[in-house]
Amino acid sequence: MSPTRQSSKTNTGMDAATLASLYQEVRQTSERICKTLVTEDYMLQAMPDVSPTRWHLAHVSWFFETFLLKPYLPGYQPLNPQYEYLFNSYYNLVGPQYYRPHRGLLSRPTVAEVYEYRAHVDRSMLALFESVKPEEIEERVSIGLNHEQQHQELILTDIKYNLSINPLRPAFHDGEIPVGDSTPPLRWHSFDGGIVSIGHDDNSFAFDNETPRHETLLHPHRIASRLVTNGEFLEFMEDSGYERPDLWLSAGWGTAQEQEWSAPLYWERLDGAWWSQTLSGMRPVDVYGPVTHVSYFEADAYARWAGKRLPTEDEWEHAAAPEPVEGNFLESGIFHPVPATGDGSHLDQVFGDVWEWTQSAYLAYPGYKTLDGALGEYNGKFMMNQMVLRGGSCVTPVSHIRPTYRNFSQPKDRWQFMGFRLAEDA
Amino acid sequence: MSPTRQSSKTNTGMDAATLASLYQEVRQTSERICKTLVTEDYMLQAMPDVSPTRWHLAHVSWFFETFLLKPYLPGYQPLNPQYEYLFNSYYNLVGPQYYRPHRGLLSRPTVAEVYEYRAHVDRSMLALFESVKPEEIEERVSIGLNHEQQHQELILTDIKYNLSINPLRPAFHDGEIPVGDSTPPLRWHSFDGGIVSIGHDDNSFAFDNETPRHETLLHPHRIASRLVTNGEFLEFMEDSGYERPDLWLSAGWGTAQEQEWSAPLYWERLDGAWWSQTLSGMRPVDVYGPVTHVSYFEADAYARWAGKRLPTEDEWEHAAAPEPVEGNFLESGIFHPVPATGDGSHLDQVFGDVWEWTQSAYLAYPGYKTLDGALGEYNGKFMMNQMVLRGGSCVTPVSHIRPTYRNFSQPKDRWQFMGFRLAEDA
Amino acid sequence: MSPTRQSSKTNTGMDAATLASLYQEVRQTSERICKTLVTEDYMLQAMPDVSPTRWHLAHVSWFFETFLLKPYLPGYQPLNPQYEYLFNSYYNLVGPQYYRPHRGLLSRPTVAEVYEYRAHVDRSMLALFESVKPEEIEERVSIGLNHEQQHQELILTDIKYNLSINPLRPAFHDGEIPVGDSTPPLRWHSFDGGIVSIGHDDNSFAFDNETPRHETLLHPHRIASRLVTNGEFLEFMEDSGYERPDLWLSAGWGTAQEQEWSAPLYWERLDGAWWSQTLSGMRPVDVYGPVTHVSYFEADAYARWAGKRLPTEDEWEHAAAPEPVEGNFLESGIFHPVPATGDGSHLDQVFGDVWEWTQSAYLAYPGYKTLDGALGEYNGKFMMNQMVLRGGSCVTPVSHIRPTYRNFSQPKDRWQFMGFRLAEDA
Amino acid sequence: MSPTRQSSKTNTGMDAATLASLYQEVRQTSERICKTLVTEDYMLQAMPDVSPTRWHLAHVSWFFETFLLKPYLPGYQPLNPQYEYLFNSYYNLVGPQYYRPHRGLLSRPTVAEVYEYRAHVDRSMLALFESVKPEEIEERVSIGLNHEQQHQELILTDIKYNLSINPLRPAFHDGEIPVGDSTPPLRWHSFDGGIVSIGHDDNSFAFDNETPRHETLLHPHRIASRLVTNGEFLEFMEDSGYERPDLWLSAGWGTAQEQEWSAPLYWERLDGAWWSQTLSGMRPVDVYGPVTHVSYFEADAYARWAGKRLPTEDEWEHAAAPEPVEGNFLESGIFHPVPATGDGSHLDQVFGDVWEWTQSAYLAYPGYKTLDGALGEYNGKFMMNQMVLRGGSCVTPVSHIRPTYRNFSQPKDRWQFMGFRLAEDA
Repeated sequence: MSPTRQSSKTNTGMDAATLASLYQEVRQTSERICKTLVTEDYMLQAMPDVSPTRWHLAHVSWFFETFLLKPYLPGYQPLNPQYEYLFNSYYNLVGPQYYRPHRGLLSRPTVAEVYEYRAHVDRSMLALFESVKPEEIEERVSIGLNHEQQHQELILTDIKYNLSINPLRPAFHDGEIPVGDSTPPLRWHSFDGGIVSIGHDDNSFAFDNETPRHETLLHPHRIASRLVTNGEFLEFMEDSGYERPDLWLSAGWGTAQEQEWSAPLYWERLDGAWWSQTLSGMRPVDVYGPVTHVSYFEADAYARWAGKRLPTEDEWEHAAAPEPVEGNFLESGIFHPVPATGDGSHLDQVFGDVWEWTQSAYLAYPGYKTLDGALGEYNGKFMMNQMVLRGGSCVTPVSHIRPTYRNFSQPKDRWQFMGFRLAEDA
Repeated sequence: MSPTRQSSKTNTGMDAATLASLYQEVRQTSERICKTLVTEDYMLQAMPDVSPTRWHLAHVSWFFETFLLKPYLPGYQPLNPQYEYLFNSYYNLVGPQYYRPHRGLLSRPTVAEVYEYRAHVDRSMLALFESVKPEEIEERVSIGLNHEQQHQELILTDIKYNLSINPLRPAFHDGEIPVGDSTPPLRWHSFDGGIVSIGHDDNSFAFDNETPRHETLLHPHRIASRLVTNGEFLEFMEDSGYERPDLWLSAGWGTAQEQEWSAPLYWERLDGAWWSQTLSGMRPVDVYGPVTHVSYFEADAYARWAGKRLPTEDEWEHAAAPEPVEGNFLESGIFHPVPATGDGSHLDQVFGDVWEWTQSAYLAYPGYKTLDGALGEYNGKFMMNQMVLRGGSCVTPVSHIRPTYRNFSQPKDRWQFMGFRLAEDA
Repeated sequence: MSPTRQSSKTNTGMDAATLASLYQEVRQTSERICKTLVTEDYMLQAMPDVSPTRWHLAHVSWFFETFLLKPYLPGYQPLNPQYEYLFNSYYNLVGPQYYRPHRGLLSRPTVAEVYEYRAHVDRSMLALFESVKPEEIEERVSIGLNHEQQHQELILTDIKYNLSINPLRPAFHDGEIPVGDSTPPLRWHSFDGGIVSIGHDDNSFAFDNETPRHETLLHPHRIASRLVTNGEFLEFMEDSGYERPDLWLSAGWGTAQEQEWSAPLYWERLDGAWWSQTLSGMRPVDVYGPVTHVSYFEADAYARWAGKRLPTEDEWEHAAAPEPVEGNFLESGIFHPVPATGDGSHLDQVFGDVWEWTQSAYLAYPGYKTLDGALGEYNGKFMMNQMVLRGGSCVTPVSHIRPTYRNFSQPKDRWQFMGFRLAEDA
Repeated sequence: MSPTRQSSKTNTGMDAATLASLYQEVRQTSERICKTLVTEDYMLQAMPDVSPTRWHLAHVSWFFETFLLKPYLPGYQPLNPQYEYLFNSYYNLVGPQYYRPHRGLLSRPTVAEVYEYRAHVDRSMLALFESVKPEEIEERVSIGLNHEQQHQELILTDIKYNLSINPLRPAFHDGEIPVGDSTPPLRWHSFDGGIVSIGHDDNSFAFDNETPRHETLLHPHRIASRLVTNGEFLEFMEDSGYERPDLWLSAGWGTAQEQEWSAPLYWERLDGAWWSQTLSGMRPVDVYGPVTHVSYFEADAYARWAGKRLPTEDEWEHAAAPEPVEGNFLESGIFHPVPATGDGSHLDQVFGDVWEWTQSAYLAYPGYKTLDGALGEYNGKFMMNQMVLRGGSCVTPVSHIRPTYRNFSQPKDRWQFMGFRLAEDA
C-alpha cells in the first residue's frame, strides 16, 4: 500500500554509439520539421505563450550545453557566453532569463547563427559521447532528447498559432489531411473500482512527475471508446453551448466572455460553413474528426451538457496501460487529428491525434521528489492551476509518449492540439 | 467501494419555532458584529476581492428574498425591485449582476436603508415560518443561514483589509488579544495508510461540495500537532525564504515578485521589530501565535524549506474527524488567532484560529452533483484553480464548522485568516 | 510691443474685517452646497479624475493650513499631523501625497471629523486675521478663497458623476431646471484683425496663468452670438457625426471608439427619446438649451461638420472683455445650463452656463512666471496636453470668474459642464 | 494683416523625365539605406510606436499605389489585393487597417516579396509617368516622394530602437562618428519683436500643415547660437535634474517616474562612464556633441533649470529663414549628430543633426485647410497633444527639409533624433 518513494533512474545500459545515434536522430528531426519555413517565419511570437522557432531551436541546444557540455566536457567553450541568458527558459538556479514575452523582438543571433549554434553543440556532444562513460550521462541525455521532442511539438503548435493571425492565411506545408465519411461508432467501456497502481517505475526514461508509482483507489466507471468529434461538438454549439453560463465553470465563463469564444480556436465561419485553419491551410471542419483546440473549460462544459464527465488521470492511465502506443503522431506527417477508425470494441485514439483533458489537477504524486539542482525546476514548480492531459497528439513524436506520461496546461489554453473523450460513473 | 451518490437532504425535523429562533440568532449576530463601525466604514471596498459591509448585509438578505420569500411566500413584495440586480453576487440563473469591483462606488441604498431592507426581509421570513411547513423549507433556510455565517466571516476579514490601507491605521474594535509566553510543544502524529471514508452523509446540514461521502486511499503519513507559529515563519524569512526561487512554485514566485512580498500580509517593520495590523489595531507579532495571512504559495514554500509538506484534505479530515469542534472562533470576540495550548499529545488548533491550507485542489468528489437551479451555482462552478482550506478560523461562527467542511481559495489569496500545519510521509 | 513681464500682486487694500468676512462667506458656501448629501455620498470616487466630497472639503482646509496657518500663525497646532499627507493634492514641494485614485478608499477621518477639521482651520484663520496685517496675507488668502471656489465647482461636478453610475439614479437635489420653447436666434459678430492686449494686469486677484498682459495678433473673424444647442448637436448625431472618422481628430476618434461614445456624457436613450442625468435627476434633453458634457474632440468634430471652427482663447477674451459678468452661475441654484435669452444682437451666454472650449492649447503667456515656492505648482506645471476653456459654468461662483480667466482640461474630458460656441474666419 | 488662405499648389513645371528621375532616386535611397540589414532585422517592432522595416518599405509603395496608380493608371492591377489592408497606415477614408501594434507579427509577405511589390509599383509608376501629363500628378508625386523620405528617416530611427533592446547590442553599420575636442562657443542672438510672416507660400512643395503663410506677432527675444550639448546636459543630471519635480511639468514628472528615466534614451552607465547606443554600436557619450533622444519634458526641464526657455516655432522659423539649408543630414552617412563647428557668430546646427523641440503646440495655422479626400488625413488629424519640432536631423534627407517644415511628436517621445537649443526673453 505504501507508494514507491524512490525516483527511478534512467539506465538502460545503452552504449555510446547508440546514444550518439539517438541524439543525432532527434536533433535532425527538429531541423527537418522546419524545412518549409522561410527565415521570417522563424521570428514570430504572436502571443506570450508561444515562442519563435529560432528560440526553440536555440533553447534545446542551450539545454545540452547547460546540463551536459558545461559540467561534463572538459574545456568546453560556449559559442557565445550571452546565449546562456538569451536561451534560458525558466531555470532560476542557472541564472536570469531574457524576458519571455519579448523573445520575438530579437533578430540576432540570426537564424543562420542559430543553426551554427546547433552545429557547435552537436560537434561537442559527439565529442562528449566519446569521452564519457554512457551510464554517467544517459539520464541527462535522455532528459535532453525528450526535452527536444517536447519542443518539436511546440515548434509545430506555435508556428500554427503564429501563422494563424496573418490575414494572408499562409500554410505551413501542403500536406494532405485524411477526412472521414461517417460518424465513427461509440461504445462505453466499463471498469471496476478498486486499488490500482499508477505511475512509472522501471529504469526506462520517464519524467520525474510520473513517479513514484503508487497505489490509488478507482471507483467504478465507464470510458468512451473514442474522442468527441467535431460533429458532436457542433451539436453543443447549436444548442447554445457557448451562451449558457449554467454549463460552465465560473472562471471558464469569464474567460469565454472576455475572449469572445463562440467556437474552438482556429474555426471560422465562411459563407455559412465552418472552416478551420490547419498546418495545411484552411480546411472545412471535418464533422467526423475529433474536435481539437478546445480549452479545459470547453471540454468540461461539453461534458456537463452531455450529462457526462471527463475521466480522471488515474482512470485514463488505468484504461490506457494495456493499449499499444500506436496512432497518428508527428511521424505521419499529417500534423492534424484524423477520424477514429475502430469499431468501438476497444479504446481508440488513446495515443496520438489530440491530448486528452482529464478532470485531474496537475499535482505531485504521493512521495514525489524533484531532481536535484536546476533540473528540479523542470516539472515540479509548475504544479499549480494546471490540468493534466494525456496521450500525446498528432505532433508528438511516437517515441516520446507512454501511458504514464503527464502533460499539463492551464484550463484556458487552446493552442495545443487539445481534445477530450467522455467518461461517466458506473 | 462505490461512493454514496445521493446528495443528503437536510431535514432534522426541526419545528417552525426553532427554525425561526435559529434564523433570528444568526441575523442578529450579523448586525451585532457591525456595531463598532461608523457609516463611512460600511462603504469601503479597497480591492475587488472584498466587498463593502453594506453590500454584505444586503446580499445575505437578498439571498433569503430570492430563494425563500419569492418562491414560497405568496404575495411577497420586494422592498425595491432593483435590489435583485444590485445585490445578486454571481447567480447567473437569477439574472445579471452589478459589476463586482464597483460595489464600493454606490452610496444608495444608504446604510440605514440597508438595515430597513434587512428588517423588511426579517418580518417576511417570520411570516414565512408561520405559513409553511418547516420540512419544506428547512434545507433552504439552512443554506441561507450558513450563507449568512460565511458573510459574517467575510464582513470581518474584509473590513480588516479595508481599514488596513488607511494610513491612520484605524482599529475595528478595542478587544484584547491573548499572547503566548513560550513556543508551544510540537509532536508528530502518525496515521496508517488504507481506505477511509471522507465526506458528509447524514441529514444534518452540509454544503453540496462535502458530498457524497466516498472512499479514498490514504498513504502512511504524519501530521503536526499544531499550527506553524510566527516565530517559526520568521526563521524561514531570516533564512532568505522570500528570496530563494528554488523554494517556490513558479506561479508563487511570480506573484511574490510582482506584489513585492517579503512577509505575511499586514506585517510591518517598525523600529526594527515586526508589527501586524489586527482588528484591534497595530500589535507586535506574537512569535508564539500561529502565522496567518499567508498564501498557499508561502505555506508551500515554507513546507519545502522545512523538508515537509502540507497535508492533503483527505489526511486532514481523517485526522480531524475524531476531534471535538472547539477552539477560538468568532464567539470568543478576539478576532485573531492565539497560541496553541496543548502539550502536543493530541491535535491542537484543528478548529478555529486559522483556516489550514491543504495540498489538495478544490475539485468535485467522485459522484458529486450540484443542487438543481440557481442554488447549483453556490459551490460547483468555483471548482477550478483553487486550493482547499479546512477547519475554520477565529472569525468563523462555531456552529458553522465541521470536520467535512471544505473552504477554498486561490493560492495567491492572503486576506482571509489563513495559516497551515505541516505533514510528512511516514 | 513688449509684454508686461511682472506678475501683478493682489493688493486691494482690503482691511482685516473685510477679508475675514469674505473668508467666512466662501467657507460657508462650500458647506451649504453639501447640505443635501448623506454621509455615504461624501465617500464616492467613481473614477480617478473625481474626488470624494469629504476629500474636497478637507483639501481646501489643508490649503489654508499649509500656505497661511503654518507659515503665518505663530504656535499653530495642526489638528492631525497626518492630514498634511492625506489632503495634499499635488504639491511635491510640500511633501508626498496619498495616492489620488484611492481617495475614495478611506473612511477616516469621517465626514464629521472633516467638518471638525474645517472648524479648527476656520477658528485659526480668524485668529490669523486679527494678528497679521491684511496686506501681508491678502494675496494668499485670495488664492485660498479662489481655490476653494474651484473646489465648490468640483464638488458639484464630481458628485454629479459619482451619483450617475448608481443604477438607482439618485438626484443630488430637487431643484427646477428652466426649459426653452424655441431655438434661440443666432447671429455672427465680426471682429477685425490687429494687435490687441490679452491677460490680467491690475492689482485685483487673478491666477498667475492669466499674466502677464501682453500683445497678440488677431486675424479677422466672426463669433456666434450664443452657444451650440442640444438640438443642433442632435442634428450632428443624426447625420452620423459619431460614425464618421473624417470629422474627428485622430486621438478623438480613438477615444470615441474605445469609450464607445455615441452621445454626450449623461445622455440616455429611453423609449425613443433622449434623456439626461442632471443634478436634479433624469430630465428630457432640452433641444433649446446649450449642449454640455462634450469633450474637446466632440466640439471640434461638430465644428468641422458645421464648416466652422472653435474660437481661439485670444479671440474669445477680446470679444468677452466688454461684456458684463452676468449669467447662470452657482448662485442661481439651478446647477444646469439654460437656453440663451438674447436676440443675437450681442454675445449671449459668455459667462456662466458652460465652460467654452477654445482651439488654444493651454500654454504659458509670453513672459509668464510662476509664483515662488510650492504655490508655483498651482498652474504652471499643468501646461501640457490640455486645451483652454473660458467663461465659467452654471456651477461656478460668479465672483470667481472674469474675462481673462483661463480654465483648462484634457481634450477627452467630459464630466465638467463643458460646451462651446462656433467661430469662423472673416 | 489677413493671412493667405489659399493653400499653395505644387507645380514647378517639371517634365515627365525629371519627375521619373526624382522618383527613382528617392526609391533607390530607401533600398540603399537598408543594405546592411539581414532578413531578420526587417521583422522587428520593439514597441508600438515603431514599425518593421519591411512594413515601411511596403507602406510607401502602397502610398503610390493608392494615391496615384489606382486613380490615374488605367488598368492598373495590384500585386495582391490584401496589401491595401495590410499596408494602410491610418487612412480611414481608404479603408480599414491592420492593427498597428501587431505589424511585427507578420512574416508574409516576406522581405523578398516586399521588394517584388516595390518593383511592381516602380514599373507601374514609370508607365504612369509616360502616360499622364506631369502637371496632373506632380503634386501627388511630390507628396509621395516626401512621404517616402519621411519613412527613410523612420526606417533608421526605428531600426535603432529595434536593435537597441537586443542584449547583444548589434550595430546597424560600421560607420565612423566624428567627435569633438572642446565645447563649442555659445552666443546669444537677439531678435526684435514685431509682426512677421510665417509659413510656406510659393509653388514649390510643402506639406499642408506649413500653410497658409500668415502674419504673427513676435516679442523681443534671444536665441542660442547652437544646440545644448551632452556635456551641458550632464551638468543638469549631476545637479539632480531627474530627481527634482519642481523642474518638470506634471505630466513629464509622471512619465519620468513611471518609465524610470535618469538619462537620455540609449545612454548606459558602464564602468563609471556614460556610453550611448548609436547606429554604429556602443560609443562613449561625446560631451561636445549635441544631446539627443530627449523628450520635450526633458528639454523643458533642462531649460527651466538653466533659467531659459525653448523658442516658439515662430521664433525658430523667423531666425532660421535666412540660414542656408546645410548640415549633417542623412547624406553624410554618419547617422548621428556631431558637435557644432561655428564660432557662435551666426546660428549653427539649425538644419540637420537633431530635430529641435519648440515650446509650440502642434496646431493649425490661421486659415489652415486640409487637402480633399483621404490625403486630408495626412497631417491635420494629428493636431492634438503634440509639440512642434523644427530643422531636420542627421537622418533626414537634405532635400526634404526647409525653414517652414513642421515636424511634431508627443512630448514624451524620445526615439527620434530629438534635441533642443535655448531661447530667452529680451
